[in-house]
Order: sequence, then structure tokens, then C-alpha cells
Amino acid sequence: MPEADDEFIDLRSDTVTTPSEAMREAAATAEVGDDVYRDDPTVNELERRAADAVGTEAALYVPSGTMANQIAVHVHTEPGQELLLERESHIYRWELAGAAKLSGAQTRTIDAGERCVPTPDAVREGIVGEDLHRPGTGLLALENTHNYRGGTAIPVEAIAAAAEAARDADVPVHLDGARVFNAAVALGVDASELVAPVDTVSFCLSKGLGAPVGSIVAGDESFVEEARRVRKLFGGGMRQAGLIAAPGLLALENVERLADDHANAERLAAGLDALDGVDAPAPDTNIVVAHTDDAGIAASDLVAACEDAGVGCVEFDEYTTRFTTHLDVGRDDVDAAVERVRDVIRELA
Amino acid sequence: MPEADDEFIDLRSDTVTTPSEAMREAAATAEVGDDVYRDDPTVNELERRAADAVGTEAALYVPSGTMANQIAVHVHTEPGQELLLERESHIYRWELAGAAKLSGAQTRTIDAGERCVPTPDAVREGIVGEDLHRPGTGLLALENTHNYRGGTAIPVEAIAAAAEAARDADVPVHLDGARVFNAAVALGVDASELVAPVDTVSFCLSKGLGAPVGSIVAGDESFVEEARRVRKLFGGGMRQAGLIAAPGLLALENVERLADDHANAERLAAGLDALDGVDAPAPDTNIVVAHTDDAGIAASDLVAACEDAGVGCVEFDEYTTRFTTHLDVGRDDVDAAVERVRDVIRELA
Amino acid sequence: MPEADDEFIDLRSDTVTTPSEAMREAAATAEVGDDVYRDDPTVNELERRAADAVGTEAALYVPSGTMANQIAVHVHTEPGQELLLERESHIYRWELAGAAKLSGAQTRTIDAGERCVPTPDAVREGIVGEDLHRPGTGLLALENTHNYRGGTAIPVEAIAAAAEAARDADVPVHLDGARVFNAAVALGVDASELVAPVDTVSFCLSKGLGAPVGSIVAGDESFVEEARRVRKLFGGGMRQAGLIAAPGLLALENVERLADDHANAERLAAGLDALDGVDAPAPDTNIVVAHTDDAGIAASDLVAACEDAGVGCVEFDEYTTRFTTHLDVGRDDVDAAVERVRDVIRELA
Amino acid sequence: MPEADDEFIDLRSDTVTTPSEAMREAAATAEVGDDVYRDDPTVNELERRAADAVGTEAALYVPSGTMANQIAVHVHTEPGQELLLERESHIYRWELAGAAKLSGAQTRTIDAGERCVPTPDAVREGIVGEDLHRPGTGLLALENTHNYRGGTAIPVEAIAAAAEAARDADVPVHLDGARVFNAAVALGVDASELVAPVDTVSFCLSKGLGAPVGSIVAGDESFVEEARRVRKLFGGGMRQAGLIAAPGLLALENVERLADDHANAERLAAGLDALDGVDAPAPDTNIVVAHTDDAGIAASDLVAACEDAGVGCVEFDEYTTRFTTHLDVGRDDVDAAVERVRDVIRELA
Repeated sequence: MPEADDEFIDLRSDTVTTPSEAMREAAATAEVGDDVYRDDPTVNELERRAADAVGTEAALYVPSGTMANQIAVHVHTEPGQELLLERESHIYRWELAGAAKLSGAQTRTIDAGERCVPTPDAVREGIVGEDLHRPGTGLLALENTHNYRGGTAIPVEAIAAAAEAARDADVPVHLDGARVFNAAVALGVDASELVAPVDTVSFCLSKGLGAPVGSIVAGDESFVEEARRVRKLFGGGMRQAGLIAAPGLLALENVERLADDHANAERLAAGLDALDGVDAPAPDTNIVVAHTDDAGIAASDLVAACEDAGVGCVEFDEYTTRFTTHLDVGRDDVDAAVERVRDVIRELA
Repeated sequence: MPEADDEFIDLRSDTVTTPSEAMREAAATAEVGDDVYRDDPTVNELERRAADAVGTEAALYVPSGTMANQIAVHVHTEPGQELLLERESHIYRWELAGAAKLSGAQTRTIDAGERCVPTPDAVREGIVGEDLHRPGTGLLALENTHNYRGGTAIPVEAIAAAAEAARDADVPVHLDGARVFNAAVALGVDASELVAPVDTVSFCLSKGLGAPVGSIVAGDESFVEEARRVRKLFGGGMRQAGLIAAPGLLALENVERLADDHANAERLAAGLDALDGVDAPAPDTNIVVAHTDDAGIAASDLVAACEDAGVGCVEFDEYTTRFTTHLDVGRDDVDAAVERVRDVIRELA
Repeated sequence: MPEADDEFIDLRSDTVTTPSEAMREAAATAEVGDDVYRDDPTVNELERRAADAVGTEAALYVPSGTMANQIAVHVHTEPGQELLLERESHIYRWELAGAAKLSGAQTRTIDAGERCVPTPDAVREGIVGEDLHRPGTGLLALENTHNYRGGTAIPVEAIAAAAEAARDADVPVHLDGARVFNAAVALGVDASELVAPVDTVSFCLSKGLGAPVGSIVAGDESFVEEARRVRKLFGGGMRQAGLIAAPGLLALENVERLADDHANAERLAAGLDALDGVDAPAPDTNIVVAHTDDAGIAASDLVAACEDAGVGCVEFDEYTTRFTTHLDVGRDDVDAAVERVRDVIRELA
Repeated sequence: MPEADDEFIDLRSDTVTTPSEAMREAAATAEVGDDVYRDDPTVNELERRAADAVGTEAALYVPSGTMANQIAVHVHTEPGQELLLERESHIYRWELAGAAKLSGAQTRTIDAGERCVPTPDAVREGIVGEDLHRPGTGLLALENTHNYRGGTAIPVEAIAAAAEAARDADVPVHLDGARVFNAAVALGVDASELVAPVDTVSFCLSKGLGAPVGSIVAGDESFVEEARRVRKLFGGGMRQAGLIAAPGLLALENVERLADDHANAERLAAGLDALDGVDAPAPDTNIVVAHTDDAGIAASDLVAACEDAGVGCVEFDEYTTRFTTHLDVGRDDVDAAVERVRDVIRELA
């Protein structure tokens, strides 16, 4: 009996990955210093390598993806300016309204629907010029892959077109690239190609790349200098952070293997979609979204029953549940998860 | 030759009305005191009468409609909570992002299109519950008449349905009723009926009602008590304000005559709509919106040429221009304005 | 028997003055327009004349002194910068923490004691340079006359020395000159001399100058342009404001007569000081501060008893009460007030 | 020749300590999970043990001491309320005005001078009640040990007296206890005794206790629940944080050995004080403050010359320099450092 049958298969998020032995060893032997004094060689190297990985001049290591995004909003906008972003984007949905609360930004949303990234026309329509009544748009934020839309990988051309529309109006563009390497692998391009059209980017080391802690916010030198100050303001300055930056360096080598997560996700989606009353479209990357409205099964019920059955997943909407593959989940786990969900669905239907 | 032919006919806004002789006389003879100490009997009476006019427990006199709305947002929401409002509402478009800047509210918009007021379903969909990631919705703001949508008068049932959807979710409702009396007259109801479904309301004395200065924000006693404090914070506490409250009292008697403005607006719309290449739908109230896309005439060109020809109007959008009737504009002025616009259109086409 | 014996003598503040017949007449006949469109000729003239009166390039009419000050703070500082100000200043004590709440400014106080204006050394010590840990000082705010310190008139040299210390460090200076004309008259200088050393100034038309409503914030053209925008943000844009600007124009002619208020205040202080257990130092201007600690009479008791006896005054501190003279108070009123307070003191002692 | 002679002796701060082998091993073998889902057993244990160490109901692990303090300010105050704190406190001087910028708090300072902690009278005088003009005091913040005043250890009675004065006025008290264990060891009391009089406390694992990353903010259950939400808002939620929490657990065992740092600091102070023109008072804990005004040596020159000579220190004021002992500095290092500073002083004098 395969071990996977007995253990909990955690598909709640790719944030749940635990560090590999190599990462633990890297932590144990990392050369460290006080990063607030910029004395930590491992953090310094991680920031250099992270900048290289996305093709920016510089990069900054921060405790979380939320801080990475909120720093970008804070640096790019002045209080009262508008932040233009997709209606279901992470910054808008899941960051406790930090844009308004920490930066005084007025949010304006574009519904990009299944496209996930606003069309250039939608961007142009959403951008507000400064006038007597309006402080104008200060930032366009994009997201790739798009989490809520099911890990959709947005092609370079779509990012570039949206970004160009903004930059033509002198509006800078930030890319929430929490999973930008998933997008790059899925699209068969280098991450730097996805980042080239924008001004700044954030990405997470602690999601599919498997690092225990931390995210990156990157851009040109002057942006990163300001970002460092805002990181301090938000309380994100850490001391001997090399201990967690060292696993982060190894995480940067995990890019190619994201293809395995995508293959597993595809297998998982096919398995779930074959279940009665479940609609699980083939995913672009590592996020599978399963709709159970036909079966009349509420996502909250499904999540609870799956947990009892040994499968972790999260509610996205009334009848929509998210399953995420990652490096702690193999092909056998996927098959076992499908089996378990099948039993759950039968019982709930 | 009618005098109107020679004088500038100012249809830019109903805010341009100048006080009547009676209002000037009222100002000159008003009994006054220091309203910051609540010693101004005229202000006190205006606040009582204003509350009566919209059927609330209490009311507060403030310098502008923007302050009235921003006070409501500040009292109802906590920083980080969401403000749900129509995509083209005044609070969102024309108040310098005060909701985000002064109150830290994250804005979420509903596009109510021609309906102008969100459907109950749209309200329910737009309301966000408080959870780990979100502070939740703190306020639904509605607008009646809806300025940008062309002075549309929203019926009681539509307001009530939208408000009920919010209040069912424990979300309070503020009505930006800058021109709520125009709506009431157009719909043949008492303003209090339009206000009954909501928690708080703002309205302007200085628009169609003809007062020189000031607006009202109204609600129950405890709301107004807090509002008074926020008025002080925003710098809206005035001293012997009875001098301008006295004309405000007369303005409250101008409700019935708004019907004349509506008739004039209807006549104006018909006249403009008959011009080649101009589409000017029959208005609900005193705001006429003229579209000149068919004629290929940009609103900015039309506004400039009209000004030269002696007609004031304002640009709303690329090919949309607003003309507003009010108590300083009679039927002859309307006819003269149509004549002048006809000549302008001919020249520009 | 003088009429003053029977009527309430209101010495609570010089904000309680009621407009003169000439002011009422001016209101009734003012030429007005929509000031938000900058079409109100009377407001335009008031702003020109107000700028002249304090020797600045430009000026802006606003509803209150609090708004005037808060606009200055908002224009001069960026969120997180420090606002350096006297520990008992109006901006710090009585404006609902607007500097922090509306502008995100960190306050740093200087205790200038009886001097009322910080010494250059105190200013230099209080100014913080921008570094990794601090956004630095954005504004020094001074106050003249100093309300809480008893209407003290600060000489030009003291203002100039403090301001120079700030400007040497590239820190702009705002003068809360709510009663700057009282200072000018008391010092025998033109108000513009008191304003020359600073960047911006606010002053009230509705205090000793006797206008019913409004204050001025003044500075150079670019400051006033920004201030106009912030006025809109705070909700201070008014429509046919000429109606209250017209009395404001007459108020500007009331400067010289402030000398009468000062003479009355001196007479009042002498009268009160002669009472048993009352210490009322000779005032610089129109504010008399009476200490009753020797008599063991709490200010709250004194204020209440005085009100019953027909004299209005306000509590400043546990044993300190403020009496303010103004144009509605004549020499007979002062004498009557002293009589009444004498009786009150006797009863309370 | 002792090794210390050749190596750089870093006395800039106790934040520069590098993790011990045991800590590295603990990181490498830590049991981890996703702490955002509260699944990290090592973080959970650290939070329990940290709460025990300071005697609170609950505790929260955060990336930095600044975030710990700013979370406390955010939870305790409402925008516009006052934050009362010592004039040279860390929150006021070195946290980029986060209290104003992130929480809208107006700061009011008490100069506690050499006493470092405000007297009850000073607290009472500094507390402002809520009234028409003021939102009132929302929080009193104390600091122990007091960094800027030279690592002064404040006795329980002084903390208790100040806190009691605040709590009598219903004002909660937060203790910035970044180095509270240094205070406890110096005073010979348990840290929980120093924390008992206050509502919430922050302390750093990454200072003298030697952990690589992280701080704690602690209080009762309901405070910590709110703090967890604010941590997310500020971007402080980390994933497999057990990797750095594990060394944190060992850090909690380093309390007793702080006595060595104190002995070393005393030795260092004696050594420096014996140098010509140097005044270095005997320290309470691990922070030595050296004044060189008598020698006419500017701190900036001293810091630069010391760095060249192999001793790290930091400028505190024009003629004041801080040297800090910690677990990477032994008695020999102290002696070597004194030698090097002697040469530096000779050269500069």
C-alpha cells in the first residue's frame, strides 16, 4: 500500500512546502551578518541572483509576498493617487486593504475575466489623468500567474501590451509575480522576458520554489533604495537573514522542476474533471480549480470532507475549490488524492 | 430682442445660481451666534428644518457637498474597510480620492450602467465579509439623482432594494443626495421617502435650491454628533454661519419650483436633440447630456465654442457635454441657448 | 443704569462677535459667482486684499482657521515627516490631531514657556535631518499672538530668529496668525513685517476683525495653487462665497480698532487682578488670563458661576480662566463684567 | 598574539551576533509547517515559551522589533489618538515615524532625562482626555532597557508607577522591551516582573539573546489575535518560519549569560573612561556610551577612526558614541578594543 494513502496530502497551497535537506544544510552553514547594516553576504548574494533571475538592476529580500507588493505600492504612489488593478488580484482581495490603509491609494479595478490581464484598451480606459478633481493614476498592478483565475500564465505579449498602455500614459507598472516562474516555465520563456515590460516585480521564494521564508521585490537601483526604506517602515528589516536567504538561493535553482508540478496539476485536473459533477479545466500551471455547482456541492463542504479524507484544499468561492501542486507532492500523491476526492464526492452528492 | 440673446447663459451647473433678493435680505437680517458653540439660532433652525425635509432625526450644516459626503464616509467606515459605490459616482470621481486619503477606505465599484443604482444582486456581490484577509465592507454609497448618468432620478423601490441588500449584511448605506430634491420632484414623492431606506444622506442647498453656500449631512442623533466632530477635524466649523444659513432656509422652500428646471431641461434636450448630429435624450431632471459623436465634434471643442457663443456648458467625456438648468435660467434662455448651440454645431460640423 | 448690567457679557472668545450693520449690508449687496469656478469677484477681491494685508503673493479664503492651518501642514509636509511646533500651540492642542490623521505628520514639540516662540537654539535642536531612520522635519509652525499663553504678541525679531533657524535647515515655516493683526497692533508694526520671515500664514477674519465666517491661508502663488486643491479635498470649496467674503473685506478695515480691544483687555485685567485671590497679568492684546489658585477657585467653578452671573468666559486649565475682549464689548461692559466677577469670587471664596 | 588583535571587534550593536552552532543545528533540524496557517509547531512552541518568559497569556513572532512595536501602536490606538512616549525612545526616534504614518497617532513626548522613564506626575500631565478638540491619549509607551540613555535598566517600581498612572486614566501601556532581559538580569528580577505592570511588551530575540532573526510582541489572547491580523497587514506573515524560530527557542535560554555582556561592558566602560578626554560612565547593562566633548573629538570622527583601527561602534550624538557588548565579544576582545580606541584617541586628540 503506497505511503501516500496514509498520509495527509496537502494541496492547500504551494506555500506549505517544507525545506529540502539541502536547504536545511544551506541554512546551517550560511555565512551571515547583520543585513540591516547590509553586512549579510548571503542576503546580498540572494538579492543579486534574484535580480538576475528576473532581469532587473537590483532586488530586495522581504519577509512575505504581501510586503513585497505593499512596498511597491508605497514607493510608486502618492496618497490619493489611484492604483489600477485586476478585480480578482491578490493585492485587492487578500492584503487587508493595505493599499488604502498604508498608502492612501484609491483602488480602481478592471475585470479582465478569463483573460486575467487587462487589455490595453481596458488599461487606457482605467487610467485617470490628474486634474482638479483627481490625483490621477499612480500605478498599474498586474499579476502573473493569476492566482484566483486558476494559475493562468499570461503570455509576454499580453503583459507587454497592458504595460505599454500604462507607460504611454506615464503610469509605472508593477507585476505581482508571486508565481512568475510558474508562468515562465509554462510559457517556455525566461522570467526576465515576462518582467521586461514592467517597472517592478515581486516574487515568492516560499511558494513553488520551495524556500521556507521570503519574497523578493525588484526593480532599478533607485526603486530598491526607496524600497529598503519602506521595508524598514513596515518592520521588514531582518538581522542575520542569511540563514533563510541561503535556502532562498537554492530555491532559485528550482525553477525548471516547476514543470513537474504543472504535469501533476494537469493529471490532477484530468482526474477530478472525470468525477461526476466536477468541472476542473486543464490548468496552465500548478493551480487546479474545481467547480462543483453541477453536483450541488458547496466548496466549504468539499473542503471539510476532503480534510477528513486526507486531502488539503481551499475554498475559493461558493462552488469553487482550489488544489495546488508543489514539490512535496508526487504523481502517486496526485492519484491518491483523486481517489480520495472521488469517495468524498460520492458521499456528498 | 430678448435680453437673453445678449447675456451669457450659464448652463455649466446649478451651482452657479446667485442668491435671490429675498435670500440676500435674509442674510442681512439673520439672527446669528457662534455656531461652534452651537449658539447660532439660524443654523440651529436650518439643521432642524433640513432634518425634517429628509425625514431624519438630525442634520448638520457644512460648507460643501464634498465635505458632507466625506464626513459620512469617515463616520461609517474604519480604515481598511471597503466603500462600495457606483463606478461613476461623485464620491469616486470628483472628490480627490478623499475616501482613501482621509479615511483609509478601499473602494470597490459597481457598474450600474444606465440603471444608475446597483441592483440588490450587484450589492450582495460587491459586499465583502470580514475575514482573515479582508476588513470587510463598511459602507454602501448611493447617489440620487445620479449626476454623471444625466441627472437620473432613481425610484424609491430601487434605492430601497439596494439599501436592503446592504443592510441585510449589516452594511450601512449613505445616499449622496446632492440633488435628492430634484429626484423627489421628478418622481412625485417626498424626499423623505427616498431617504427612508438609507442611514444617512447628504444634500446641497447651493445647487438647484439656490442657496449661496452650504450642504447638509443628516442621519440619526448619534451619527450627527460624530459628524460634528469630524466636521471640526476637516476644518468645516464656521462661526456666525447664520448669515448663510438664512438663505439656506429659503432654499428649502424652493423644492417645488425645481419642476420648472425639469421642464426647461426637457425643452432644452428636445431642442438640442433636433440638431444635426446631436443626441440629447429626454432628461429625468435638470441635467441634459448631449452626445456629439455622430457629428464627430469633441466635447472640449463644443464647450469652447459654446462659451464664445455665450452658452456655458461642461465636458463630461470625449463626446459628451453637460448642460444644466436652474433658477437663473428661464424658458427664453433655453430657447436662446438652443439657437446659439445650433450655430456652433453648424460651424464645427 | 447701563444696559450692560442686564445683558450677558460674552467674553468667551472674539469669535462670538456678530456682524455689523455695514457687514450685513455688504453681504446683501455683494457681487457673487461660483467660487469653485473662481467666478466670485468678491472672493477674488478678498483674496487679493488679504494677500496685501500680510504681504504675500496670494491668498485663499477658507471656512475656518483650523482648515487654514491643516491645509498648510498638508501642503508643506510629506507623510512621516515631522511637524515641529510649540507645545501649547493651537495646531497641537485643539485641532483633533489633524496633522497626524490627515497628513501623517509626526509631531515634535518645543516648550517655549512664557516666551511663546521657540528660540533659534530650540528650533535647531528640534529639527531632525532626514536619514535612514527618520523622514526629517517638514515644517516649523509658529503662533502669533499665542492664544494659550494669553494672547502674547511675539516681536518681529523673535519670529525672524526662529524662522531663520528653520529656513537655514531648509525647513519651511508656517505662522498660525489667527490673531496676527492683534500682534501687529500691539507691537506697532504692520502685519506684513510679522509675516515676512515665514513662508505661509493663516489668519482669521472671524475673530477680532469681526467677520461672521472665514479665514485666510496665504503664501506664494504655487503654495496657494496647491492649497486650493487641498481645500477641495478637505471639503472647503464654497459656491457664492462672496456673500460672506464681503463682510470679510470690511473686517480687513477693522485692524486699527483692535487697539480698543487691547485697552479694554488691559482695563479688564487690572480690574480682575485687583480682586482678592485673582492673579490677572496685564495682557499684550485682547486675551486676559486669570489665575485663581490662590483663592482655591477651580476654573470650571468660576466659569459656571460667571455664566449664571452674566459673564461668559472659558476654562483654560485647572485654575486658569480666559476672558477675551472684542468689538461687541465696550468699556462699560468691561466694568460691568469686573463687578459681576467680583461678586462671583466673593461667593466662591 | 591573541586572535582578537587581528580581527574586527564589532561593538556597533548586539544585533550583529551570529548564530551559534547549536542554533544552526536547530535550524537545520526544526520541525516546520506553514505558519500563516498556524501549522508550524516550532513557531507555536516559540510563541508559547516567549509568552511564558515575559508572563503574558500569548505572544506573536514577528520579523523585527520595529514591527513588534508598530503592531502594538496600531492595535492600541485609533487614528488621531495620542501616543505618549519618552522623547528619546526608539519608537519616536528610529522607526521612520511609523506611528503617525501607519497608525495616524499624534505623538506627545515626555523628557525623562537620565531617569529614562517618566515619573507618574509626568505621565499624568502628558495624558490628554478625550474632548471636543482632542481624541485623547490612546497609549503610553515605555522602554526598558532604554537604548539611547545608555542601556539603562529601569526598576520594577518605576515602570509600575508610570504604568499605574496611565492605567488609572484608562490608558493602556506598551513596553518596548527590545532588551528587557538585559534589564531583568541587571536588576536581578524575572522579566515577567518588569512586564507585569504593562499591557503589552515587545522584545528582540536577535539582540543580546543571539538569535539570527525575529522579535516577539506579547499580551493577552485578544491582543495577540488582533496583532496577528496587523502582522499580515504589515507583511510580516512568514511561512516555514520554524527554521528561524528554532534558534529563537535557544535564544530564550541565553538570558542568564547576559550577565557576561554586562560585566564586559563594565570593563569596557572603565577602560574607555580611563582614556584622556573620554567620559564613559559605568553602564547598567551592555551599552556603553562614551562622551568625547572634553577631548573635542566628534563622534563621527571617532567612529570612522575606530573602524579603521578594527573596532565597530556607532555615533549617537555630536560627541557621543555607543559601544555594545554581546555574545560574540569576550573579555579579551574588550581589552583589545580599549587598546585600539586608546591609539585612536591619541591620534585624534
